[in-house]
Amino acid sequence: MSTDAPAAASASSTIQRDSTGRLRHLITLEGLSREELTALLDLAQFYVRAPGDFPARDKSLAGHTVANLFFEPSTRTRVSFELAAQRLGADVVNLDMTSSSRAKGESVLDTIYTLQAMHADILVMRDAEPGLPAYVARHVAPHVCILNAGEAHLSHPTQGLLDALTIRQHKPDFTQLRVLIAGDIAHSRVARSAWQALTTLGVAELRIAAPDDLMPAAGEFAGAVRYDDLDRAIEDVDVVMTLRIQRERMGAARIQDERGYHQAFGITAARMRRARPDAIVMHPGPMNRDVEIAGEVADSPQSVIQQQVTNGVAVRMAVLATIVRNVHARRQLQ
Amino acid sequence: MSTDAPAAASASSTIQRDSTGRLRHLITLEGLSREELTALLDLAQFYVRAPGDFPARDKSLAGHTVANLFFEPSTRTRVSFELAAQRLGADVVNLDMTSSSRAKGESVLDTIYTLQAMHADILVMRDAEPGLPAYVARHVAPHVCILNAGEAHLSHPTQGLLDALTIRQHKPDFTQLRVLIAGDIAHSRVARSAWQALTTLGVAELRIAAPDDLMPAAGEFAGAVRYDDLDRAIEDVDVVMTLRIQRERMGAARIQDERGYHQAFGITAARMRRARPDAIVMHPGPMNRDVEIAGEVADSPQSVIQQQVTNGVAVRMAVLATIVRNVHARRQLQ
Amino acid sequence: MSTDAPAAASASSTIQRDSTGRLRHLITLEGLSREELTALLDLAQFYVRAPGDFPARDKSLAGHTVANLFFEPSTRTRVSFELAAQRLGADVVNLDMTSSSRAKGESVLDTIYTLQAMHADILVMRDAEPGLPAYVARHVAPHVCILNAGEAHLSHPTQGLLDALTIRQHKPDFTQLRVLIAGDIAHSRVARSAWQALTTLGVAELRIAAPDDLMPAAGEFAGAVRYDDLDRAIEDVDVVMTLRIQRERMGAARIQDERGYHQAFGITAARMRRARPDAIVMHPGPMNRDVEIAGEVADSPQSVIQQQVTNGVAVRMAVLATIVRNVHARRQLQ
Repeated sequence: MSTDAPAAASASSTIQRDSTGRLRHLITLEGLSREELTALLDLAQFYVRAPGDFPARDKSLAGHTVANLFFEPSTRTRVSFELAAQRLGADVVNLDMTSSSRAKGESVLDTIYTLQAMHADILVMRDAEPGLPAYVARHVAPHVCILNAGEAHLSHPTQGLLDALTIRQHKPDFTQLRVLIAGDIAHSRVARSAWQALTTLGVAELRIAAPDDLMPAAGEFAGAVRYDDLDRAIEDVDVVMTLRIQRERMGAARIQDERGYHQAFGITAARMRRARPDAIVMHPGPMNRDVEIAGEVADSPQSVIQQQVTNGVAVRMAVLATIVRNVHARRQLQ
Repeated sequence: MSTDAPAAASASSTIQRDSTGRLRHLITLEGLSREELTALLDLAQFYVRAPGDFPARDKSLAGHTVANLFFEPSTRTRVSFELAAQRLGADVVNLDMTSSSRAKGESVLDTIYTLQAMHADILVMRDAEPGLPAYVARHVAPHVCILNAGEAHLSHPTQGLLDALTIRQHKPDFTQLRVLIAGDIAHSRVARSAWQALTTLGVAELRIAAPDDLMPAAGEFAGAVRYDDLDRAIEDVDVVMTLRIQRERMGAARIQDERGYHQAFGITAARMRRARPDAIVMHPGPMNRDVEIAGEVADSPQSVIQQQVTNGVAVRMAVLATIVRNVHARRQLQ
Repeated sequence: MSTDAPAAASASSTIQRDSTGRLRHLITLEGLSREELTALLDLAQFYVRAPGDFPARDKSLAGHTVANLFFEPSTRTRVSFELAAQRLGADVVNLDMTSSSRAKGESVLDTIYTLQAMHADILVMRDAEPGLPAYVARHVAPHVCILNAGEAHLSHPTQGLLDALTIRQHKPDFTQLRVLIAGDIAHSRVARSAWQALTTLGVAELRIAAPDDLMPAAGEFAGAVRYDDLDRAIEDVDVVMTLRIQRERMGAARIQDERGYHQAFGITAARMRRARPDAIVMHPGPMNRDVEIAGEVADSPQSVIQQQVTNGVAVRMAVLATIVRNVHARRQLQ
């Protein structure tokens, strides 16, 4: 690891805007207005295609170069961004940062400067540590955009957007909805970004349910109602989002094994019957079947998990196209 | 490994056809008619270019997305499929499955559903275990095609096609030919696919030669004449196909080392003199020089090994174009 | 490792020309005339764009296939070649050769023949051992070009060109310049290629400065003035090129640690004050900040390190376009 390790980002929401207030990077959903979120969802919806149809395709990113820098590996998110960029006509390069440059002792910032000097102008980053995207955003040239593809437990903005889009496709009026996020909330960037999006979009009630030791600190998730009993939490909700649980976290939650977790915090068919009859079930993937979610629930008609994946590509196309449009707008104003 | 491990495929040849009887996937050459094989070889021949010429290129796959999923690594086959897809205008993504998703405990089927939801509609798969391609084919959406790029010891259909194409370029009339496949037949998907193709194409005589313990079970390779003595097996044949031997298999065959294998089952210049004077020599690659084949034979004028590689890209283009054409035909009929 | 390990290349400069004298491969800058270097730099300059502008793009490589074969890993150089090839319209495939084929025991030459048979006609190679590019160049088909992307301590021609281009952008008249190359000269392919380029381009004075044990053998770097004292070496120079030091080499140089190296051979702000006031500072990357170069010097207005990276892509585009143009010219003459 280099010596220029970034401090935790406190001002991601400020740094991601240019002097005209336009989005320049996407590091967090914090601070995005309802109008901004709606515009991104609308553009994403424009890019959605039915299964079996050809994917949407245009030239919004022609001439641009997207570099995927994954310091934490994630095949699924990397491929989603890669396809989104390809389908908008960008050049794409993949850098597996888990091994290469850090091994050579080069500072992350020098790696970024190198890519920037090669005219890579959109950098998609994932990192297990907090702070890198904002840190990098503070240092790149004016024409370079940083997209956060997952940052520690803090932020995963395109996931939050795809979750909001998926909900909207089934339940268009957020102000009528009760949404439950269940599982390892404390360590979940998915939960934090979903909370930010859904709160701004005006969800009627947001519930979070977690084992005691996986509940976030008191100051977090303002406005959310907290439950430690999933059976009560799920009652009458319209949307159930469950989260991936990592085996090593169960111990911290004083849960013995996967079976025990499933009993206490798994989304089962029985539990789903406590929710609204037309409730939808969501999972960010990859799933541990029969741990945080019963296989039969994941495959049930209420499940919109594959739709989330389709929406993921569409949302990333919308973000890429918006960010690039803002770069061009900014230039014309100067 | 996930819990949804597929059972061995018994009905790959059925599952790979749609309700109109058209090829929808390519999992095995079993059950393909002589006309179907000939049509694929004819289209592949259309895509063949001489060394030094530009490769063939068209837009047959425009709008399509090919995902290479290699659960067993193979740079040469992956690159061959990647170039075939690129040259037909597809978007291509590579997933190294040896590490990523299985490590995360996601079921293979959920990985497939994820790719399908991203509008990846052609999935090229290689796996060391039997059954995965047919298992996946049984579960994907109607517009998704599975291409088998190597399955355990069972099937490697594009290899079988490229072998048939290479033979046809030198010896156009299969019904006049004596073909020998020599080496580790028991463990060879190359041998099985070649046997299927050549039998259907009406080869006059197919011989298989292997050390006793590397000979396939009695019920397999119907119609082939079995030899344990390579010197006798090679006599007067028109085509010699030798197979890669893996060191760990020699012990099973009670052969001490590579030198011993070469003496007993290597294709040497001396042995080649027992074949027809115009016989061709083939190897699927990568070669162990001076083990299963003498270096001087691999480099001799009788060797068509590099032509096999060129034909491999052409055959994969033909399969991709055919499969996609069938998807479109099926839609118009519905 | 295969048994066909190449001998050290003695005649790279001969092998890289075709029978008409045109460059066919680029393995070394040795033997290139001032006119040839100038033509390459001029074309590279044509491809340079300002930061924030779109990168240059044309179709010089349409129909061509570039394969990156990195036997020694290098994300930065691989991405630079990949972007250069993409922006000229080539198909590109990446092969991580650190693991794949050598592990399977296939000879390097058979891997090359395989790629060539797939119509990959430009092979970009990096290897830690000397001799491979020339060895391969001697064996490939007439239409296949080898580009050396780094060969042992011997040669890194595109780096030499980008260094020359960067210098020329700031100091157009080479005949007026004093250039210093400082650091681990003995093991540096960067230093050797820079020396070749700058000597041919007529630099007034080339100095090399290294700790005693990292000084090259007496017969090497003809014409260069040798220094073991960096403070004296740097006096009044116009250009300071420093080189990456590897920790394991410090011991050989009887230097205890990175701090000790920095004191004795680091480019510091204090040392830079001994150079000409308008001197530029260069580093091939990746940098060890505060080891071979002080962070403040790397980030100072005198630093042209990021410009080197931009020029790297432009130089590689120029080399690719030139090599391909020569292939076509050769064909028309035949």
